[in-house]
Amino acid sequence: MSHTIADFDQFLTDVQAFVYSELIPLEPQLLAEGFGSVLPILQEKRQLVKEKGWWLPQMHTDVGGLGLSVHEFGQMSEILARTPIGHYCFNCQAPDAGNMEILHQYGTPEQKEQFLTPLANGEIRSCFSMTEPNNAGSNPVLMSSTAVKEGDSWIIDGHKWFTTAAEGASFAIAMVVTDPYTDNRYQKASMIIVPLDTEGFEHVGKISIMGEKGEDWVSHSEVKYNECRVPLENVLGGEGEGFAIAQQRLGPGRIHHCMRFIGMAERSLELMCQRAATRELAPGKPLATKQTIQNWIAEARAEINACRLLVLDAAKKIDELGSQAARVDVSVIKFYVSDMLMRTVDRAIQTHGAMGITDLTVLSFFYRHERGARIYDGPDEVHKFVVAREELRKYGIAIRH
Amino acid sequence: MSHTIADFDQFLTDVQAFVYSELIPLEPQLLAEGFGSVLPILQEKRQLVKEKGWWLPQMHTDVGGLGLSVHEFGQMSEILARTPIGHYCFNCQAPDAGNMEILHQYGTPEQKEQFLTPLANGEIRSCFSMTEPNNAGSNPVLMSSTAVKEGDSWIIDGHKWFTTAAEGASFAIAMVVTDPYTDNRYQKASMIIVPLDTEGFEHVGKISIMGEKGEDWVSHSEVKYNECRVPLENVLGGEGEGFAIAQQRLGPGRIHHCMRFIGMAERSLELMCQRAATRELAPGKPLATKQTIQNWIAEARAEINACRLLVLDAAKKIDELGSQAARVDVSVIKFYVSDMLMRTVDRAIQTHGAMGITDLTVLSFFYRHERGARIYDGPDEVHKFVVAREELRKYGIAIRH
Amino acid sequence: MSHTIADFDQFLTDVQAFVYSELIPLEPQLLAEGFGSVLPILQEKRQLVKEKGWWLPQMHTDVGGLGLSVHEFGQMSEILARTPIGHYCFNCQAPDAGNMEILHQYGTPEQKEQFLTPLANGEIRSCFSMTEPNNAGSNPVLMSSTAVKEGDSWIIDGHKWFTTAAEGASFAIAMVVTDPYTDNRYQKASMIIVPLDTEGFEHVGKISIMGEKGEDWVSHSEVKYNECRVPLENVLGGEGEGFAIAQQRLGPGRIHHCMRFIGMAERSLELMCQRAATRELAPGKPLATKQTIQNWIAEARAEINACRLLVLDAAKKIDELGSQAARVDVSVIKFYVSDMLMRTVDRAIQTHGAMGITDLTVLSFFYRHERGARIYDGPDEVHKFVVAREELRKYGIAIRH
Amino acid sequence: MSHTIADFDQFLTDVQAFVYSELIPLEPQLLAEGFGSVLPILQEKRQLVKEKGWWLPQMHTDVGGLGLSVHEFGQMSEILARTPIGHYCFNCQAPDAGNMEILHQYGTPEQKEQFLTPLANGEIRSCFSMTEPNNAGSNPVLMSSTAVKEGDSWIIDGHKWFTTAAEGASFAIAMVVTDPYTDNRYQKASMIIVPLDTEGFEHVGKISIMGEKGEDWVSHSEVKYNECRVPLENVLGGEGEGFAIAQQRLGPGRIHHCMRFIGMAERSLELMCQRAATRELAPGKPLATKQTIQNWIAEARAEINACRLLVLDAAKKIDELGSQAARVDVSVIKFYVSDMLMRTVDRAIQTHGAMGITDLTVLSFFYRHERGARIYDGPDEVHKFVVAREELRKYGIAIRH
Repeated sequence: MSHTIADFDQFLTDVQAFVYSELIPLEPQLLAEGFGSVLPILQEKRQLVKEKGWWLPQMHTDVGGLGLSVHEFGQMSEILARTPIGHYCFNCQAPDAGNMEILHQYGTPEQKEQFLTPLANGEIRSCFSMTEPNNAGSNPVLMSSTAVKEGDSWIIDGHKWFTTAAEGASFAIAMVVTDPYTDNRYQKASMIIVPLDTEGFEHVGKISIMGEKGEDWVSHSEVKYNECRVPLENVLGGEGEGFAIAQQRLGPGRIHHCMRFIGMAERSLELMCQRAATRELAPGKPLATKQTIQNWIAEARAEINACRLLVLDAAKKIDELGSQAARVDVSVIKFYVSDMLMRTVDRAIQTHGAMGITDLTVLSFFYRHERGARIYDGPDEVHKFVVAREELRKYGIAIRH
Repeated sequence: MSHTIADFDQFLTDVQAFVYSELIPLEPQLLAEGFGSVLPILQEKRQLVKEKGWWLPQMHTDVGGLGLSVHEFGQMSEILARTPIGHYCFNCQAPDAGNMEILHQYGTPEQKEQFLTPLANGEIRSCFSMTEPNNAGSNPVLMSSTAVKEGDSWIIDGHKWFTTAAEGASFAIAMVVTDPYTDNRYQKASMIIVPLDTEGFEHVGKISIMGEKGEDWVSHSEVKYNECRVPLENVLGGEGEGFAIAQQRLGPGRIHHCMRFIGMAERSLELMCQRAATRELAPGKPLATKQTIQNWIAEARAEINACRLLVLDAAKKIDELGSQAARVDVSVIKFYVSDMLMRTVDRAIQTHGAMGITDLTVLSFFYRHERGARIYDGPDEVHKFVVAREELRKYGIAIRH
Repeated sequence: MSHTIADFDQFLTDVQAFVYSELIPLEPQLLAEGFGSVLPILQEKRQLVKEKGWWLPQMHTDVGGLGLSVHEFGQMSEILARTPIGHYCFNCQAPDAGNMEILHQYGTPEQKEQFLTPLANGEIRSCFSMTEPNNAGSNPVLMSSTAVKEGDSWIIDGHKWFTTAAEGASFAIAMVVTDPYTDNRYQKASMIIVPLDTEGFEHVGKISIMGEKGEDWVSHSEVKYNECRVPLENVLGGEGEGFAIAQQRLGPGRIHHCMRFIGMAERSLELMCQRAATRELAPGKPLATKQTIQNWIAEARAEINACRLLVLDAAKKIDELGSQAARVDVSVIKFYVSDMLMRTVDRAIQTHGAMGITDLTVLSFFYRHERGARIYDGPDEVHKFVVAREELRKYGIAIRH
Repeated sequence: MSHTIADFDQFLTDVQAFVYSELIPLEPQLLAEGFGSVLPILQEKRQLVKEKGWWLPQMHTDVGGLGLSVHEFGQMSEILARTPIGHYCFNCQAPDAGNMEILHQYGTPEQKEQFLTPLANGEIRSCFSMTEPNNAGSNPVLMSSTAVKEGDSWIIDGHKWFTTAAEGASFAIAMVVTDPYTDNRYQKASMIIVPLDTEGFEHVGKISIMGEKGEDWVSHSEVKYNECRVPLENVLGGEGEGFAIAQQRLGPGRIHHCMRFIGMAERSLELMCQRAATRELAPGKPLATKQTIQNWIAEARAEINACRLLVLDAAKKIDELGSQAARVDVSVIKFYVSDMLMRTVDRAIQTHGAMGITDLTVLSFFYRHERGARIYDGPDEVHKFVVAREELRKYGIAIRH
């Protein structure tokens, strides 16, 4: 039972009905004309969501959210993920959701007022600036961007890419090295809030990913910080706390991603079944009569159910014991669920034949936009290492990456 | 919380300690000399189990069991399955467990006294006689064995194989056609209790499976019923109820199997980790340093955890809503978990190198004895069909096998 | 030894050097700005190819080609496929190559003069119009487009999609039903040449595939034939011969596709190795030191080599015994090689991390543009059926799709 | 065309007819009663093979063989491997074939007379003694067995296992360290011929593998060399040449193994098809009508064909350029083909349902006896490393195991 919602099952049912009746019908336009074209409509939908009292489900009530637990929001997130625009309409989309979370947890009252409040209200958007083109993302110690103190300012220099949703954002939370000489390599970096109108901030360009540069929230940018000057108080949660906050942020963040994956997998299975039920190989003989398709459907059902239980189990662990305790569980789901998603999408495409590779269904969108799921927030290989390391520790052996 | 055990977690911990300290040490003898050679020791262990008050965990208290729910026994079953002799020592081994269950549920007071009580006490063993060599097991309508009424007796004729544990058993529960002409093909068959000393019962021989015929409880027989005469009252649960009872029996039965699979997979992972931690490729460089091995360990951990949650979820559904309601969930786990088991065993073998194919570890035993897991109680392909059929039903389409 | 090229190995070496020095350097522009932007440069490269005497390698010398056998062109095709623009520069790109082939084999002298000669010279382009949106492509009997005789004309009506490269093409070869009432369903259809400036031909639009509509040769269109009137003599190879010609065309066509797949897989492996060799996880520790990457490289090498031998073996069979004799071999390679390609591309992407999903390498292009490889010219599932049917025939059993 | 056989295709046809008519009918007895029980009959078959002029196909004519090239014998080996007793009847079974080969190539005239001649005549059997229980087989430097010179003798001490076919053998070729202090670790070891009646040779016992110890040629032993004294001239091919000879031996040896794998895979596919064609799911509806089975058949056909071409290609390379030149090709086939075999056997078993796990077909024999194929002569993982190392070398990077 939810702490904050009287009848949680009914809530989920209502949200699902909303997703199917109000949002999925916007997909053809999204797929044909791009995110920018549907953005005005999405603002209306956001208003509708606010009116229904569903706004900001993942955040605490003190900033106007519903205060759902990780476990509860996981269940909701799966439903929102049926369509690429679901989370956006509820203001629980990455990277804003993560940014709101750490601002809420680590922000000063001033930071909250200036950055969190408008974000929570949906008046502005933000981005998170961590990955660097010249350093392997899987090794956090390899980071070149820096912030140096000068008077009452930080002077930030750096080169980042995959800064998601930078186009149209008001500020970035940038991960930069503030103490390059510390012995503790996990205390080298800090998170600093950089308004994007800061002088020296350079939007190099949107990265073309899988054939498109995208627009606004659905885009990933390369950016440069050229001697950007921001107040010292823009550091978030203390100097040297960058990695600690990132770890904290990544736990629930990966739960949300994984539940999104499950939602997309459910949608893919749904499209696969619909296609199988309606496409005729010969009069009266639908595709669903083919055993290969039946196998795919059965395997997708099994895999999705397994993944859901695994993710919700990790979510519960985070709710009860915190991110750190669930660290290995989170690594398990990150590689396991993203792999399942891509396999399910691929089979749904194959089931659709030529239509599967067109943009007449959302499958091609998933196929392209989610290939990164096995890479971002740690590639499969790194998460497998984390899990194996933990497992082997029980046998008295410590492996190194 | 268990209905019957005050501290269920402690109970599981104690049982696991028992399995590792009392039973696993018997494996070398089991593997080198066969089941017959350890049988006398197992009788002592059974006595020990009784003394500890752990006997017959899966059965109701009215026959001397612990009265565990399906969900509880599932968790225990995983622990017992760490070794091939675990279930036997607790008198919850197949096929006796299933036979006790249906005798308890459908048996007359006389049947219970004559067959269930000594079974529950571990004084006798039983077998279940359903599969026929000449008919595809996946189609229950294809059954040739018959029972015909003559006076106050059934005259049974038939040819069965894979009658597990017939050697040394006191009676069989035989599935036979009693009403070949009924319109409802699911009411054609009945279950009839046949004491094995009945005249006409022929033990054709133990089937050589994966290179061995096995002994006693660890064997599978081909048997013939040559005009076997048993009293009419030996029918179980009513004429024509064979399929209905089988379905009822198979739900929890498959849960037990699947939890056994998980237990064996855990054991395989454990052996894999131990090997990886101790086998040196070069001085100071254990096998565990190889990323391939690490990947296997991580994937096994993910898959086992996912399977466990899936099986326990189905178990809970059976406890709460009954076998019928969980039918599709049970089909999901049957193919999903057996597949995981075989993959895990295979990788554990590969990790052991040449030792992996010897009988110096239990892995080869699992590899051979559990290959049938993807076949018995319905091959993967049939269960996938069941799942796909249910899924497609939501889209208004009815597929046929 | 080639029939027409004195030193064939040297020829292949020279062509490969050309591909790497002249064409691959154009990729960044292709990936960033699209095919239209590089088209003017490609015309220069085509001129260069002509000057080198490499033009039109796959065609007979009587139309100015090199007269390579299927086996020889297969080897060359693998090299050209290293980059998406390779075949185009040598005028052996689909669908023109296939169209030229059937025009050469079945065309009247007038058809050759009007359509084949300018195509062979690279003065015009063409398209092939077969797939229909409303009919399963895997069942050729399900075709709705028609041509009806009226006086000395065919009146063509129909709706097609995936008419590749229609934008900018001069004519289509359209597959249409000309005899709907024949008993022999394989004689229902004919191929008819339709100049695209024919009144009634409607270019409905380019289909958005995997996020982009593409341009010119790199595009797929939806088209309609609205009472298009073309002369009776525009039929190719005789009325009712449509399927027969298509079968004839598909044999070598699939060889070419499969060798293209191998070329792309080789390029992907090359990029994977380059990345592994240069990307550092830590100073002095390149990605290539990770066993997972090594496994992928080894498996890709094995799979590519196996596929190459299989395709060249089928090519040789076509050269020696004709398309019909190699029909099953061609089905084998179609599903086997396309599957290998997608797996290899996927692993190359994963090896590149975040860069793998960008358009900074050609991998994302392959990932999106070649997903259709498992669908067009018969989905995997249909080819597997063809192979299984042939195999089972040896055991006296005839299976039906 | 064969150098020594006029009509090689006819020869293969005849041999195949012999295998199916004379040898496969012995399988039921082999499977039910063990190798020892059929041995007397096999001696008769060997006589028959001699009479037909097919004896010793792989050896040079100067020792009474047919002098087939590696490429030719590969094709023949595939046929012999249809049944586990094929190679034995033609005296080309491992490990004797390998021993004969190195005796022929490196043996002194005296060694040839004493050991090769009776082996070639089939009067005695031999074994090869290399793997050690306490050292990872994948690292040849880790070897503990030693031979020390004393007067005109070697004194051999060591502990070996997986000494195949030691039971009933007349001599072993033992790999032992003769120069532990050399800088060149590949010159540490030598091969020494040890008659098994040498004092100090201890046959510790046959290793139980996959549930059985086997008999005679079909067995693997643990042996000890306890101060075994053999003449200095029993060294084969020179001191310190052990690894060099082993490498030389392993090239063609792995070709033979891989062609055996292909033969077993073909047999498995054959059994799968026969089962599919004859087993009825319902009257008139054979298993072959199920698409899952069809997929497996098609995939097996594709994979077998691909593997065959790959192995024969490597064989040709050995014939033309020698073992060393084909080293990487041989690593490719070793892991690629053994993997294919196990997958094919597994699917053939699944196709047979319950019968698949019995010993009523040869499938269970393959399943158990060939699981080692992915381990012996180098586990998959080592061969993948070899292939990746070679591939990465092209990119200027040297990886270490």
